[in-house]
Amino acid sequence: MTADSPRPRPVMLGQNQYGKAENRVVRITRDGDTHHIKDLNVSVSLSGDMDDVHYSGSNAHVLPTDTTKNTVYAFAKEHGIESAEQFGIHLARHFVSSQEPIRTARIRIEEYAWERIATADAPARFPGADESKHSFVRKGQETRTTQITFDGETWQIVSGLKDLVVMNSTDSEFWGYANDRYTTLQEAYDRILATEVSAKWRYNWTGDEARMPNWEKSYELTRGHLLQAFADTYSLSLQQTLYQMGLRVIENRDDIDEIRFSLPNKHHFLVDLEPFGLTNDNEVYFAADRPYGLIEATVLRDGSEQQIPADMTNL
Amino acid sequence: MTADSPRPRPVMLGQNQYGKAENRVVRITRDGDTHHIKDLNVSVSLSGDMDDVHYSGSNAHVLPTDTTKNTVYAFAKEHGIESAEQFGIHLARHFVSSQEPIRTARIRIEEYAWERIATADAPARFPGADESKHSFVRKGQETRTTQITFDGETWQIVSGLKDLVVMNSTDSEFWGYANDRYTTLQEAYDRILATEVSAKWRYNWTGDEARMPNWEKSYELTRGHLLQAFADTYSLSLQQTLYQMGLRVIENRDDIDEIRFSLPNKHHFLVDLEPFGLTNDNEVYFAADRPYGLIEATVLRDGSEQQIPADMTNL
Amino acid sequence: MTADSPRPRPVMLGQNQYGKAENRVVRITRDGDTHHIKDLNVSVSLSGDMDDVHYSGSNAHVLPTDTTKNTVYAFAKEHGIESAEQFGIHLARHFVSSQEPIRTARIRIEEYAWERIATADAPARFPGADESKHSFVRKGQETRTTQITFDGETWQIVSGLKDLVVMNSTDSEFWGYANDRYTTLQEAYDRILATEVSAKWRYNWTGDEARMPNWEKSYELTRGHLLQAFADTYSLSLQQTLYQMGLRVIENRDDIDEIRFSLPNKHHFLVDLEPFGLTNDNEVYFAADRPYGLIEATVLRDGSEQQIPADMTNL
Amino acid sequence: MTADSPRPRPVMLGQNQYGKAENRVVRITRDGDTHHIKDLNVSVSLSGDMDDVHYSGSNAHVLPTDTTKNTVYAFAKEHGIESAEQFGIHLARHFVSSQEPIRTARIRIEEYAWERIATADAPARFPGADESKHSFVRKGQETRTTQITFDGETWQIVSGLKDLVVMNSTDSEFWGYANDRYTTLQEAYDRILATEVSAKWRYNWTGDEARMPNWEKSYELTRGHLLQAFADTYSLSLQQTLYQMGLRVIENRDDIDEIRFSLPNKHHFLVDLEPFGLTNDNEVYFAADRPYGLIEATVLRDGSEQQIPADMTNL
Repeated sequence: MTADSPRPRPVMLGQNQYGKAENRVVRITRDGDTHHIKDLNVSVSLSGDMDDVHYSGSNAHVLPTDTTKNTVYAFAKEHGIESAEQFGIHLARHFVSSQEPIRTARIRIEEYAWERIATADAPARFPGADESKHSFVRKGQETRTTQITFDGETWQIVSGLKDLVVMNSTDSEFWGYANDRYTTLQEAYDRILATEVSAKWRYNWTGDEARMPNWEKSYELTRGHLLQAFADTYSLSLQQTLYQMGLRVIENRDDIDEIRFSLPNKHHFLVDLEPFGLTNDNEVYFAADRPYGLIEATVLRDGSEQQIPADMTNL
Repeated sequence: MTADSPRPRPVMLGQNQYGKAENRVVRITRDGDTHHIKDLNVSVSLSGDMDDVHYSGSNAHVLPTDTTKNTVYAFAKEHGIESAEQFGIHLARHFVSSQEPIRTARIRIEEYAWERIATADAPARFPGADESKHSFVRKGQETRTTQITFDGETWQIVSGLKDLVVMNSTDSEFWGYANDRYTTLQEAYDRILATEVSAKWRYNWTGDEARMPNWEKSYELTRGHLLQAFADTYSLSLQQTLYQMGLRVIENRDDIDEIRFSLPNKHHFLVDLEPFGLTNDNEVYFAADRPYGLIEATVLRDGSEQQIPADMTNL
Repeated sequence: MTADSPRPRPVMLGQNQYGKAENRVVRITRDGDTHHIKDLNVSVSLSGDMDDVHYSGSNAHVLPTDTTKNTVYAFAKEHGIESAEQFGIHLARHFVSSQEPIRTARIRIEEYAWERIATADAPARFPGADESKHSFVRKGQETRTTQITFDGETWQIVSGLKDLVVMNSTDSEFWGYANDRYTTLQEAYDRILATEVSAKWRYNWTGDEARMPNWEKSYELTRGHLLQAFADTYSLSLQQTLYQMGLRVIENRDDIDEIRFSLPNKHHFLVDLEPFGLTNDNEVYFAADRPYGLIEATVLRDGSEQQIPADMTNL
Repeated sequence: MTADSPRPRPVMLGQNQYGKAENRVVRITRDGDTHHIKDLNVSVSLSGDMDDVHYSGSNAHVLPTDTTKNTVYAFAKEHGIESAEQFGIHLARHFVSSQEPIRTARIRIEEYAWERIATADAPARFPGADESKHSFVRKGQETRTTQITFDGETWQIVSGLKDLVVMNSTDSEFWGYANDRYTTLQEAYDRILATEVSAKWRYNWTGDEARMPNWEKSYELTRGHLLQAFADTYSLSLQQTLYQMGLRVIENRDDIDEIRFSLPNKHHFLVDLEPFGLTNDNEVYFAADRPYGLIEATVLRDGSEQQIPADMTNL
């Protein structure tokens, strides 16, 4: 819409955002012979005064997505990558503070973990002595995530993980449920409970003045609480396990006010071996792909506001 | 939380939902020798009075996800599958009206299109005469989607498509953009514009009394508008093309009030052939994977409320 | 192995090959306003006198994979892309004839098809008149493939397709099979037969003197024979359908001597609706993911040598 | 071909095989409270006297793929799963020895590793004391593979791994290579070397009389040799690293005669930060997706026959 056409539009532009997605950056830091890796996938999303580019194609307010990509790589040099969260904070502050039309920046980051390759000859009893200095193997377990949002005043940091597959081979039951004419499920008093954990937790840090969490340490401890709560819970339903996982995090992490889970119930069906004259005493399971139960919920500190959006999957 | 423990919890349950995801159902309808296929992936998500199962593991309010799966298959027989939208409406109404604790049902469906295999000997001039009666090949282009949400009173139907890859090999420019110290991009006056369209549109039908859209026809026509607007727009920026696609839909489809797009800018970089003594006159391109621009926006009828959530990707 | 160490090695180098894989090249050809697209994924694999680089790290015989990538892009300009097969022939001949240590080149290409976006206002009765000149939508059905191998004297061209999903909703039975103590399957007299066709066919053209096939036309006709044979065969087993598909190709295509198929039996299980008081008269199916039957076989012209390797999947 | 049609066929059946692919079996073994997991993906492929089913659709010689699936699950109970190799040996022997028309069985298995979830309160100094008894997290690193082939007389066991991503952040060079008019690559004297290891190794055990390898221990040690050789090799080219990895295995594992690798060169390009006034001292890299170098070779004990097929990828 050009300045000289003030008549109302019958078709309006609503929420909009743009940026460069999935910038793969690997940062090596040298400490003598010993190297350290940060391996990130960074997605930038900017919004603000962007009506013109949609209505008329004028790019005057548009910092190219190519520039946002360049900024990711330049900042990896200028600021280093202390943590995914800290790196995202640098980026978000930069875009909002340096370009007037940009009002909000949201940085999403996936982080892939690496561990050092064990060397053959170092004595195992000196921790660290048996590790390569610059040779690594990708850990390959969960993907760490974070999302940094900044509107020029307030910060929202939502970190998390995905792809973390866990299983309890016992201590899980499912019975006493509602039923209707379409219910055929048999009650289970000892079943496998397996899921692939996706979790996002919101830190209560919102501004520059307050002391920032130690992002690296907080991640490791939160991940540990999730795993231990999963392992420790005698489960009557995946919803109960989910709540216990959230509860453990909120109770133990003062820096986190809210956590949301998306937990697929990865069904392991006991195979019927009767036709072959065999008894299946909770020994042989078929691991099914689809369909799967999908249990999603938010757990939050009393008095906190629910901010993490409901849908963490595209299904 | 049991009835006799009314003390406040320091850690609360927030929004929660559950159900069986990705039920793959194929429905064959016979019209004499001629068969028709509907091929769906149906995900059920239910919410309501579900505190107990999270706090204590009591499943008394929980209709098993296995039952929701059974219902999908039973309804495919009882109601048939006239359209993905109509099928989802049957399912959502059933869950909300038949189980007291369930207050809201959300049904998400992906639909895969099939076309008939052409027969060898039929004369091509009689439309349909040259098609198999019960042999099909999967169309393999876009995936059609819909999401039906029902809270017992009001319906929200958000349909769409994804995976639709389009390209204009000319009629696209990009210049006149903002720049800063990290900007190195050269202006482009004739470039390839390619994207993979993800779109979700909200129908303004919200209740049983109003006349329902013709879901099948509306989908076909909306898809056509999207493609033609993409083809017809001389583009100064992908944002402009996005708006024109939305505009075309809102102007032409009275039944749709809002549409949201997620458009990756699938970069096709002109390869530098100078080192080989060759001139690349917009002939040879490298199709890049990552990173990619990501342009997302809502376009809506003036006066309409924005209801489709902002994030259509997990990045 | 350096020249001065002629003693036998206890650990030998065997077959080896190297090159740049998955070069994504898009070639636009202009015919006035009308543009044409070729969209390929090209993988180069070279072998020859490469002992040194493995034994000692000397790269003197190694044309860098980066150079093979450059050659793909340069050749797209210099020779154009008439067909995937012809393009691969140009590349293979170049590598073998220009670098003495390279004895054999193998070029593998995937091709993605595009179709023109239909325009709104052109009269439908003039074929082609209703199509955009430079706006395209990716067809999204099968992926076309080819593999060109050249050892300096003889050519082997193995073309094919993959990802082509087909279904017969009737005219398929399965009974009369062998059984043992682990057999529980019920005989089927009317079932869905669905598969995702992977096929590779070998042309009998082996040298420059003989007249080359018309690669584009031969592909289209072969694809048609596959689909029609699938549709026309009343199937007692997927193996029988496979043979009929191969038979149809060999009988109709003089330029093809051998064809190999990998056909997953994509099971569609009839859902048991009896518990719900419903009869499933071949109407409602569950489309399963895993496990699946996997049927693989070669069909060849009598007297021809079997050259296509057995394993077309990695499982 | 039916008995009464002895005339020669102009179109012949060549190599063929069939079976059930991707049977997902999870086997739990209980040692008191302590549980052990084996998590496999088993694909069965059978061949033999199968002409009739292809030519006429007669299934008299065909043991249904459904039966091969049942056998996988029944054998998980009857024999347990000591190792993927041993389990495949049980299956292959059964199919060949129990069904006269079946001459050869090939069993392919993928294995997913799990580790115990660490418990919070156990003292870390007692190894194993700090581990859950029946709670697991999927390790998520490499996928272990094996292929067992049995023709009634001789066994071939080819085990391996895939998806193992490794990186050396220094100690890699690439220079002194051949060049032609399409060469633009700059020589590198300190680069990142990263790859995703796919390896298959053939054991020299071929029959029941000889002592079988300890499959579990041999796998762990071979994996260790691969990682250490990758870490220890100062690399002048990925081919040299590949050979050193193979050499290390053949020299250290008497039970292995041949190993083949498929090593994508996962390029990490140094980002040019000069335009921003910054120097990139091997600190900031762009991790590229496609194209990638692809280096493949076999390393074998002198005097051994090369048996592992050349192509480990579908590209």
